[in-house]
This record gives sequence, structure tokens and C-alpha cells, in this order.
Amino acid sequence: MNFSSKLIEKAVDAFATLPGIGRKTALRLVLHLLKQDKTVTEQFSTALVNMREGIRECTQCHNLADEDLCQICADTRRDHSMLCVVETIRDLMAIEDTGQYRGLYHLLGGIISPIEGIGPADLNIDSLVERVQTGAVKEVIMAISPTIEGETTVYYLAKKLQPTGVQLSSIARGVSFGGDLEYADEITLGRSIVARIPYGQ
Amino acid sequence: MNFSSKLIEKAVDAFATLPGIGRKTALRLVLHLLKQDKTVTEQFSTALVNMREGIRECTQCHNLADEDLCQICADTRRDHSMLCVVETIRDLMAIEDTGQYRGLYHLLGGIISPIEGIGPADLNIDSLVERVQTGAVKEVIMAISPTIEGETTVYYLAKKLQPTGVQLSSIARGVSFGGDLEYADEITLGRSIVARIPYGQ
Repeated sequence: MNFSSKLIEKAVDAFATLPGIGRKTALRLVLHLLKQDKTVTEQFSTALVNMREGIRECTQCHNLADEDLCQICADTRRDHSMLCVVETIRDLMAIEDTGQYRGLYHLLGGIISPIEGIGPADLNIDSLVERVQTGAVKEVIMAISPTIEGETTVYYLAKKLQPTGVQLSSIARGVSFGGDLEYADEITLGRSIVARIPYGQ
Repeated sequence: MNFSSKLIEKAVDAFATLPGIGRKTALRLVLHLLKQDKTVTEQFSTALVNMREGIRECTQCHNLADEDLCQICADTRRDHSMLCVVETIRDLMAIEDTGQYRGLYHLLGGIISPIEGIGPADLNIDSLVERVQTGAVKEVIMAISPTIEGETTVYYLAKKLQPTGVQLSSIARGVSFGGDLEYADEITLGRSIVARIPYGQ
């Protein structure tokens, strides 16, 4: 594309470095900003720079944080005796969005994956064990992907945490609500029969 | 979505104001920036702010420009005796991308549309007539959408420009190259027969 302007070209290039944004979309975004007042672009840029400069990692759970502790860890109304172990921030947000969980979290930062060269030392496992060892935590809920790597990670974590005597659990697996039985995969359907729930609960 | 961070929330909100970017995509873009070095976000923001602050309108053709004249108008190797009249910058870019046109442009900034309340006075028509009246322009090519509003605009421009004696032309309409005849609309197909071209040209 020929923009006949270096300024436009650089702005399009900037947008096009973002994932999922090609040069045509980037141009559309640039032309959109040009139609708006200058202050819109300034505020947009400031929000991004402030975010990137100011964001920290929660010293307790490794979530994104504006202060030393993230909003969740700093919230005294939440149940500090429960930890939910998740792989990523997206998983944490997905659980938060359900509004069903009022405990704290612990972000692993990934799962054990020999293929990708990710071992236990690359994940936030030591800090999890330390948190549990303080004795304030009563239950650790594993909310890890039900894949081979995920199961390996859960197995590893369980071995590390069992000596502390903490109660371990895993999020329930089964057929999706609203899901058609015939479209559920065999393993999920099989396990959902084995792990059946008494009627009325 | 619950971001448990005001900084993240503001950055997501900023991206989500852009057209075609929802909050899920915005979050993906923010997390992408977080994975990169801080300088990436700084350079991104700087490119946008520089663009928005520095961009001007070409004093001659109304294209986007870094200087008083846009790169096209300032290019002495181009044919300054031809003007191609387009509605928008996107149309100009589309023609530039073909690499088939080496003249100059004139951006109308839209087309005459009584429904949208756009009259001739809202478009860059006076400056077009002035450019042509200088006598340096030999041909004006109308590259306007073949819609009712477009035809009205072309008719209006023709009446304004005819007294100058400049040669007027319109881009060719017809069946697309590679297009299947059966999928061409009736009007295009009909006109393409009337405006048939002698074989071999």
C-alpha cells in the first residue's frame, strides 16, 4: 500500500505489529483516529503507556497488579483460605467473570511441557508451596486444562502440596450445560458418567 | 470482564473505542503489549501521536500530507497535467496501488448526497475548479462511485468544469477481470455491451 505520507505509514506499521491486525485494518484504525479530535489519540496513547509502565506482578499471586498486591489479593472481603491455581491471566479472568468464586488465585504462568521446554522451575510453583505452608490456606483448587500437560502439572503440584496437609480439589469436568450429549467427546462423556452426581444436588 | 487492574481496564477501554475491536480483542492486544518490552508500547504510542499531531491536508489536492504539499503533488516526475477526482483517501490509495496512474489527484472529501445533507459547498469543488482554471491541467478523470449520488456529483462537476475547456473522462466500467459473466449485475453487463471495445485494443 502506498500512503503518500511517512507519518501515516509509520502509524499503520505500528498497528499492523499487533496480533490479528493486518495492514488494511491498520489503515482503517488510523483513518478513524484522524477523523477524531487530537485529544482522542493522545488519551489512547497515554492509556497504553501508563498501563505498560505502571503494571506490576502481584507479589502474592502473580496476577497483574497496579500496586504490590493485586485487587483480588488486597480484597479483605474475599476468602483468603481458598486458592485457585490457574495457568494464565485469561483463565483467572474467565473464572472471575462467572462471579461464582470468592477465594484467591495463584497464577502458574503456564503448565509443565517438556516439548516446549517448560519445567517446574519455570513456573510459579515454589511461591505456591510457600503460600500454602504459611497455614492460612485450607483448600487449593486446581483449575488446569484437562490435557496431558495439564494432568502432569496437577500430579506434580499434588505431590508438592500433599505434605502440607492442605485439601486439594479440581474443578468439575463434565458435559457442558446446554450441550448436546451426542456432541460431547467420549472421554468427557465417560468421565461424566463415572463422576455422576446424585439427583437433586 | 473483570480485569482486577484499573490500568489494564483503561487500556482495554482505549482499544475497544476503535472500530471493529471488541473488549475480548482489546484484552488480547493489551496482553500482547505486556509480553513485549516497554519500548514497544512507547514506540507504538509515539507513532500514533506523531501521526495525529503532524498530519496535514495537502494545500493542493486535499490528500493527507506530511508537508504543505503531499508526496504525490510534490513529485515532479508525475504528470501534473492530469487530475483524477476521487471521493476519499481510500479511493486514492486503491488507484495508487494499481501502479497504473501517474498523474495527480483531487480529493472531493465525499459526494453530493441530499439525504445525508452533503451539498456541493461541503466538498472540495471550488478548489478543483481553481486548479483547472490555472490552465496547467489538460484532463480531469472522474473516479467516482457509479451510484445515483456519484452520477449526480459527476454531472455537477462536469457543468462546473466544461467552461474551462478541460478534457473530461470517467474511469471505465465493465465486467471485472476474472469475473464470471453470469455473476455480473444486469446494469454492468448491459453497459459493458454498449461500451464494447474493438477487439485487440
